[in-house]
This record gives sequence, structure tokens and C-alpha cells, in this order.
Amino acid sequence: MIDQSEIPSATRPAPTLEQVAERAGVSRSTASRAINGGDRVSPEAMESVAAAVADLGYTPNRAARSLVTRRTDSVALVVPEPDERVLSDPFFAGVLNGVSTPLALADLQLLLVIARPGESERTARYLRAGHVDGAIVVSHHRDDAIDRALQASRLPTVFIGRPLVGGESAAVVDTDNLRGGRLATEHLVRLGRRRIGTIAGPADMSAGIDRLAGWRAALAEAGLPDDAVVHGDFTVDGGAAAARELLSRFPDLDAMFIASDLMAAGALPELAEAGRDVPGDVAVVGYDNSGLATTTKPNLTTVTQPVIAMARAAGEELVAQLQGRAARTEQVFEPELVVRGSA
Amino acid sequence: MIDQSEIPSATRPAPTLEQVAERAGVSRSTASRAINGGDRVSPEAMESVAAAVADLGYTPNRAARSLVTRRTDSVALVVPEPDERVLSDPFFAGVLNGVSTPLALADLQLLLVIARPGESERTARYLRAGHVDGAIVVSHHRDDAIDRALQASRLPTVFIGRPLVGGESAAVVDTDNLRGGRLATEHLVRLGRRRIGTIAGPADMSAGIDRLAGWRAALAEAGLPDDAVVHGDFTVDGGAAAARELLSRFPDLDAMFIASDLMAAGALPELAEAGRDVPGDVAVVGYDNSGLATTTKPNLTTVTQPVIAMARAAGEELVAQLQGRAARTEQVFEPELVVRGSA
Repeated sequence: MIDQSEIPSATRPAPTLEQVAERAGVSRSTASRAINGGDRVSPEAMESVAAAVADLGYTPNRAARSLVTRRTDSVALVVPEPDERVLSDPFFAGVLNGVSTPLALADLQLLLVIARPGESERTARYLRAGHVDGAIVVSHHRDDAIDRALQASRLPTVFIGRPLVGGESAAVVDTDNLRGGRLATEHLVRLGRRRIGTIAGPADMSAGIDRLAGWRAALAEAGLPDDAVVHGDFTVDGGAAAARELLSRFPDLDAMFIASDLMAAGALPELAEAGRDVPGDVAVVGYDNSGLATTTKPNLTTVTQPVIAMARAAGEELVAQLQGRAARTEQVFEPELVVRGSA
Repeated sequence: MIDQSEIPSATRPAPTLEQVAERAGVSRSTASRAINGGDRVSPEAMESVAAAVADLGYTPNRAARSLVTRRTDSVALVVPEPDERVLSDPFFAGVLNGVSTPLALADLQLLLVIARPGESERTARYLRAGHVDGAIVVSHHRDDAIDRALQASRLPTVFIGRPLVGGESAAVVDTDNLRGGRLATEHLVRLGRRRIGTIAGPADMSAGIDRLAGWRAALAEAGLPDDAVVHGDFTVDGGAAAARELLSRFPDLDAMFIASDLMAAGALPELAEAGRDVPGDVAVVGYDNSGLATTTKPNLTTVTQPVIAMARAAGEELVAQLQGRAARTEQVFEPELVVRGSA
């Protein structure tokens, strides 16, 4: 097999945008829009164009562009979390999947940067040093150094999930977590539950804070107490520990809103262990509508978070910024309640 | 909270190597060796020094070094696999865990580069362009562009797993997969099995080829037939499909050597479905000794692959190369048989 990369590019016939469009079965202008960030292009057409680009080895004027810019043609997906969370939480698989398509179409190399606890200073330095053209940050916490470093650096940046500090000037793709927390809790109230606890997400992340605020708002509206709160860390083990604590401090609970399906998957065995039938004794609503929600017993009533669509939007937004198009300040996806067996 | 990164470094008291050594409870020279690649340092001392470095925010002459070198202070961990495999196979979690410690100690930012099928040309270009100081490549396939690109680039590189093409000049950390395949198969022969099939790994990866060769060698020595071979792709679903094919083509099998625990986890339900008792009717040996091996029913007899130790050795080797110390050409870890319920 001949390594094409070793043949001088002048002797290799470069595939054209027309050939990409033909192979993908779309118009030239659709192919062009797909390659430039996906504005007004259907997910199906994006996939077809991505496949055609890969098959043909099309590179959109990359060499010419690199000569006049100081581009590295790479962007970082920054995740300030421990490795094991990144590798075990299906949320991150969805994020990776969603951001990959628009970045691949724009011929940008994606670098996954896991900034482990205690190492976010190094990552902040790396991002400031100009080794990447832009960054997408997901799952950031209040005290990590990433947000501030990125704002100081003027590196094009998109946050998936609203940053708690200084996100005013950044592009943000988010879901309405406050509304999601309300939807979950209002459902429990409608079922006649009167003692509704919550396993909230981390108190240093907007998703944790906002889902908790939605739970409080729904309880206030129904005139119910909002004292039964334990925070978890969005992991299975964290959910199990929080469920044990919640049950021992508030044994009279008849419902739980649990701010992630992973934590709910950890809580369900603890409820069974404590002799509580779900949903008979304790109704449970999760969050995320991840693949897990249909593997637990009972299946989880939960709130959708369209992770792949959000991540795709973040990738498209970053490509748009890199191409000098104005940044949209905020895109918010609507959550929906999905009712299954647990509540 | 004050962002330390915004204070000019001249006004910030920089932690010293002595302070790191004291905090870690090791000598100055041990701390120094730990930070410079871990030569003759125990895993426990590496962990202590890593923790002390993180706590104190120690950076080993980084600023001074960057002024005189053209270092980016980052290295790539390159995985030419689909995202979903990287995120679901515990092998990669072990690799990340193992490489992280020596790289963090040397204050190098780790970038995870997932070169999806059809995209390895872009990754090869990225690696050649000087955006990273070095690379560790894992799970490479015969036809991906990565190996050759790295050899052309003279970028310091360490392979985890022997590359099939042109690895002669590269540093390699591997396990003796041929011996591992032999160990597994000799165990089945000793149990009196006479019709031993295999679900081999991919035919374009050295781990797939070598484990298969070990199976063949053991069968030849025992005078048994070696026709019952189906290749899988190291995934659960691939293992399930391969098991169905193997059972339908060779219904008389009384044993299977399956070249990864993930594939074995996919094969076991297929064996049950086909009415075969494990190990009564069909004895099964897996490979990897991953966490999975103790969750299947029955638990898997398997072959150890010390992933974390191998990855740590690869990280240390890359740090040594970056510091101008001569590259060791090859480090091979010995496999061991672990006997549990499945054979």
C-alpha cells in the first residue's frame, strides 16, 4: 500500500468540492455549508458529506489557508474531570460523538484534553500558549482555572453548559436545567407525592445548581417542604452514597428527583436494599435520558438532555467563530419529560 | 479565589524541588528522578511525588526551558479507533491511567487524539506539524497512516503494542502475546479438551496476530486441529457475532480461546443461548484480566495483560526520549494465566 502522504501534493489529483457534493448526493452549496460549520444543513446531509470527505480525502484549501494564517488546525475538547468519569459516563461519549462531525468536516483535528483535578493550571497554560485554534469546554466546575484562562486568552471558545464565572462574553450551548428540574418535580407532585427529596448534582456546576433550583421552585409552588437535599457527584457510586444518606436522614420520603441517570442507577439498589419499592413506596425521576434509563429495573422516568445535538451545535459554533462569523451568545435546548416505570 | 495564573510569576514564590521531596516523603534525588521519567522509582514513590507536585503547583524549570527550546510541553496519546471503542473498552482507561502519572510529573499536557477510521491522514498531518513534543500510539492497525507518518516525522514516539509496519526503529512497550495465546491454549489442552476453537483479535493488529499464533503453536504441539478460527474486533458485539459463527461452523467445539475479555463477555450469552454449559460443554479462556473477568457468569479464566504498568513504562520511555536519554528499543511484559470458573 502506498502512503499517499509521502507523494508531493502537486502530483496528487486533489479531490474537488464538486466531487464531494456528487458523492454525498447533495448540491455544491449544501456541501460547502456543511464543510463550513453546517448552517442550515440537515444531520443526514452532514453525515453524507462527512462520509464523502473521508472517502475522497478532501481537504478544504487547508495548505493554502495555513500559509496565510497561523492556524494549528486543531481544537481542544476540554473536560475538567477525573479520567475514570470521562471514560465511564455516557454523557461524554455523546459529547465526543456530537462535536466530531462538524470538526471533521472543517478538517480540524480534535484533541481531548482531560484536565484532572489539581492539573487544571497546566491545562490553562497549554490553552493560553496558542497550540490550538479554539476550545470547547464541557463539565467545568466553579474553581477550575479553565474558564478564566480562556477568557484571558481570547481563544475562540464554546462552553457546553453555562460557566458559573464570567461566562457573559462566551458562547454557550446549554439545556434549560432549571426547567428540567421543574418538569421532573411537577410530575412527582402530580402523582400525589408530598415528601419529595433530591439527589442534586455538584454544587459547583451550573447543571447541579439549576436542576436543584427547578426542584425548589416546583416544591414552593406546591407548598411542599424543600429540606431533603443531598449532593452527589454525577457517578453511580456517588448516587448510591447520596441515596443512603437521604434515606437515613429523611426516612419518610415518598419520592426522589435524582439529577442524573447514572446517580439514579446507583440509588435504585440502595432503595431496594432499604426495602422500598419503586415506584410504590418511593417514586424516582432521573435526568439525561441516557441509554442507562432503559436498563434499570424499573426503567427510569427521566428528563431528556439532547447531548449529541448540543455538542454538534457547540462544534458548529466553534467552526463559525474560527471562520470569523459572529458568535451566537447562547443556544438553549428544551428538556422534555419521558415517563417510564420508576415514577 | 485568586487565579494564581494571573499573578506575574516573579511575585509568586515558586515551590522548590526540596519542598516537593519533603511533602512526598522522599529524598531530593528520588523526587528528581520521579520528575524526570521515573527511572528506578517505585510506583508508590511516583504517586507520592505526583501528589506533592500537584498540591504545591511545582513546575520544573518550565518557563526557562521553553525559552531555549521550541517545546510545546504537550504529548499526544494516539488511538486509531472509533470513539465508542475508546470510551467503552477498559483497556483504554488503563492506558490513560498508566501514561498520566509520568507525564504529569514531567509537567507535560496529555492530549488524547482519537483518529477515527478514515481520519488517520489528518492525524498524521497534525503529528508531523510540530504541535506536540512526542507521541504514544496504542491500538494501531496495519493500514492506518499513523506509524509511517511518525517515522517520517522523527517525532519522539513510543508504541504500546508492536507496530506491524516499520517498528524496527521505534521504542515499543508490549506484552508477549504469543506466549499469552500459548498459555491459554495449553491450559485447555491440559483440561483434556480436544476440539479447541478461537475467536481471534483483528488480523491487522499485532495483538490479534500474535495471540492467534500462540494458539496455533500450542495446538500443533498437542497434535490438535487448528481450523476453527473466526476473527472479532475486540468488542462485546463482535465477540457475540464471532461466537455464533464459530458454533454454527464447528458445532463440536469443546473449548474456545477468546482473544479479549470483552469479546468473551459477548460470547458467553451466545453459548448459553445455544444450550452449551460453560465450562461443562465448552471451556472458555479470555484475555486481558480486565475488571469484566470477575463480573461474567462464570468468572473468566484469562491471561493477564498488565495494561497500567505497560502504559506507565511507555510514558516514562517518552519522557526519557524528550530529555535526550537514549531510547530503549523494546520492553516486553510477561503474561500470566489466571484460572477462574470458565475453564
